[in-house]
Amino acid sequence: MANLNLVESLVKERNAWPEDDVSVVLLVLDGVGDVRHPDFGMQTPLEKAHTPNLDSLAQKSALGRILPVDYGITPGSGPAHLGLFGYDPREVDIGRGVLEALGLDMDLEFDDLAARCNFCTMEDGVITDRRAGRPATEENVKLCSRLQVEISKIEDVEVIIQPGMGHRFAVIFRGPGLKEGVCDTDPHENGEPLHTPEPSRPEAEKAARIINKFQKLALDVLEGCEPMNAILVRGVAERPDIASMEDRFKLKAGAIATYPMYRGLSKLVGMNIIDTGTSVEDEFRSYKETRSDFDYHFIHVKGTDEAGEDGNFDHKVEVIEEVDSGIPMILEQNPDSLAITGDHSTPCPMKLHSWHPVPLLLHSNKCDIAGAERFTENECTTKGTLGIFHSMHMISLLLANASLLDKYGA
Amino acid sequence: MANLNLVESLVKERNAWPEDDVSVVLLVLDGVGDVRHPDFGMQTPLEKAHTPNLDSLAQKSALGRILPVDYGITPGSGPAHLGLFGYDPREVDIGRGVLEALGLDMDLEFDDLAARCNFCTMEDGVITDRRAGRPATEENVKLCSRLQVEISKIEDVEVIIQPGMGHRFAVIFRGPGLKEGVCDTDPHENGEPLHTPEPSRPEAEKAARIINKFQKLALDVLEGCEPMNAILVRGVAERPDIASMEDRFKLKAGAIATYPMYRGLSKLVGMNIIDTGTSVEDEFRSYKETRSDFDYHFIHVKGTDEAGEDGNFDHKVEVIEEVDSGIPMILEQNPDSLAITGDHSTPCPMKLHSWHPVPLLLHSNKCDIAGAERFTENECTTKGTLGIFHSMHMISLLLANASLLDKYGA
Repeated sequence: MANLNLVESLVKERNAWPEDDVSVVLLVLDGVGDVRHPDFGMQTPLEKAHTPNLDSLAQKSALGRILPVDYGITPGSGPAHLGLFGYDPREVDIGRGVLEALGLDMDLEFDDLAARCNFCTMEDGVITDRRAGRPATEENVKLCSRLQVEISKIEDVEVIIQPGMGHRFAVIFRGPGLKEGVCDTDPHENGEPLHTPEPSRPEAEKAARIINKFQKLALDVLEGCEPMNAILVRGVAERPDIASMEDRFKLKAGAIATYPMYRGLSKLVGMNIIDTGTSVEDEFRSYKETRSDFDYHFIHVKGTDEAGEDGNFDHKVEVIEEVDSGIPMILEQNPDSLAITGDHSTPCPMKLHSWHPVPLLLHSNKCDIAGAERFTENECTTKGTLGIFHSMHMISLLLANASLLDKYGA
Repeated sequence: MANLNLVESLVKERNAWPEDDVSVVLLVLDGVGDVRHPDFGMQTPLEKAHTPNLDSLAQKSALGRILPVDYGITPGSGPAHLGLFGYDPREVDIGRGVLEALGLDMDLEFDDLAARCNFCTMEDGVITDRRAGRPATEENVKLCSRLQVEISKIEDVEVIIQPGMGHRFAVIFRGPGLKEGVCDTDPHENGEPLHTPEPSRPEAEKAARIINKFQKLALDVLEGCEPMNAILVRGVAERPDIASMEDRFKLKAGAIATYPMYRGLSKLVGMNIIDTGTSVEDEFRSYKETRSDFDYHFIHVKGTDEAGEDGNFDHKVEVIEEVDSGIPMILEQNPDSLAITGDHSTPCPMKLHSWHPVPLLLHSNKCDIAGAERFTENECTTKGTLGIFHSMHMISLLLANASLLDKYGA
């Protein structure tokens, strides 16, 4: 993290946890950023929502906007969260297989290989439907457990299979000498035969051999199971070897998230997973209950992104109002520094992740109060004492506002 | 300065000085930036101060905010000023010993080694008080001159000693073959013996030997002088070899500062020191009197930082008002471009340097007028035609506004 070395070098030495009672909080409203659009009354959900608690907090906070990756770049959840956690998302590569496995709540160990897979339909050696007619998830679950029973080990490599939705599942290969660099067996269009998983570099030879065997064994197991009679293996990737937030920023970090993907991303940077329920209130209560167990809490709210992807403006407003009503529960814990933001924007008119800079509210007892009335995209721009900056720098501001950074130079 | 090579390459060739009468002015109100805080009536000193001249100038100027080093990074005076002078403070390292020597108005030559030292108390070979009971400065001065008389040369190395405040003094070692890379002799806690000054790299062997001898000789000289009967040597550093502002930007630069540290920092980048008095008015008059002798004037006002570090809001307001009343004296000289800013923020509620972006006013006859009413943190944010940017880029703006940069490309 060339850009962040200086910050790391300035993080203060502190008394052993838990004697020193620091609380840094990152509250992520996934996809919260939005744009004004005539179809939605020229207001964003943050502007439309009734948010007395966020308004009051905004009046005592610094505001700004963050660029998840770079100008015009729309991030997936992986890079977007890495930026928020203080990692340069352009430097860390999280493979597709790894993200899929994390999203299915699988435990990835270092040196594991992960792949995302499809059930597909094959006739006369040719793929005729890459998604096997989009089967019901129950069919998927059944066949995955059959595969798991029949193929638990290949050579000295353990095979761990986890069903996903519809035609999708994930596989972890665990054993010595497995390196990424194996091409997809997916021909990426119908009418083609399965590709042989070739190694793209010598280190990946064993992995390619194991995956080749896996694919052939799967064909045997699935014989006669039309339309799910074959599999495609894609996005084979190692768990990235990322220095933990504790190593880099001396923060003992805990993650509160209702969705497995975000717990998995947290684990990649060494966070501890905190048990929680399913509602925003459950999540905020989990912060309260573990406030003194960690220096840093990441709290992830999923609903804003889902509503954005559905283009459901009213529901996005509701989720924001639900968060607003829980804000006092967080403030009662007196965090030393608190950021409220999103990992990216998911504008309702687009129904997709986007590149638009995300509104950010930063609160501490030494923040640069913006003089804003509300926490909205527009206020974060026009009253933005923090300006517009790359999200990976937010960790520096959170640390500085919690008095956790030494001075640079004399 | 990878980031600034382009600017350097575009600086116009000009007629020999003094025929071409350019005046670029950087007026630094040290630590001027502040934050709104309930304890201080939710106003910053710039907001509270009565500043008719700065207000009037702000209405005709571009505004913005500058990051001294980077997001969340609190700079010392060294890095903060290097940024203002157009140097990347993350690339240039000014050692502690060098800063101490500069702060005591010592003349550093290239290849000199500088160290900051403490008088300390030693009993039975163990340091019992690293600050020798915080002696009066007069005691320090007496013992320094005794050390100087007894130890003026070690081998072929000249030793130059300068007392500081209380227990502190600085030493310059001047002679061939001295390189930095010598560990502190300071054990950094009481109850430990003096460390031997080991070289951390082969090039520093001679320096380590000389400093070892210096320390032993000092022990002989100070025998019986309890509590100041030993010394600690710390932060041994070479004068950094920095290209001058004249070499980089073709600016013949002069510095007006009442404090030695800032004159010293100016000398590091090749500025000439201009004699001045002790008041802000004296400093502004020095600019007036030398306007045609230099292309670039750095004028340093210390009072704002001192007031901030004392948490003395009212005094910070007074210093700002004192500066305000002198502004016409500067404007009468029609500088081609004028920046008024700080090296960093020193918020009264914090009583410390901080990371908060510093308000910047940039005036020229071609600046991007902001439409602001006043020069305050908030106006610099909300009317910031210059945005928020790293302070090292300010030199480019000063040069451009003084018509000193060529076009880039055709």
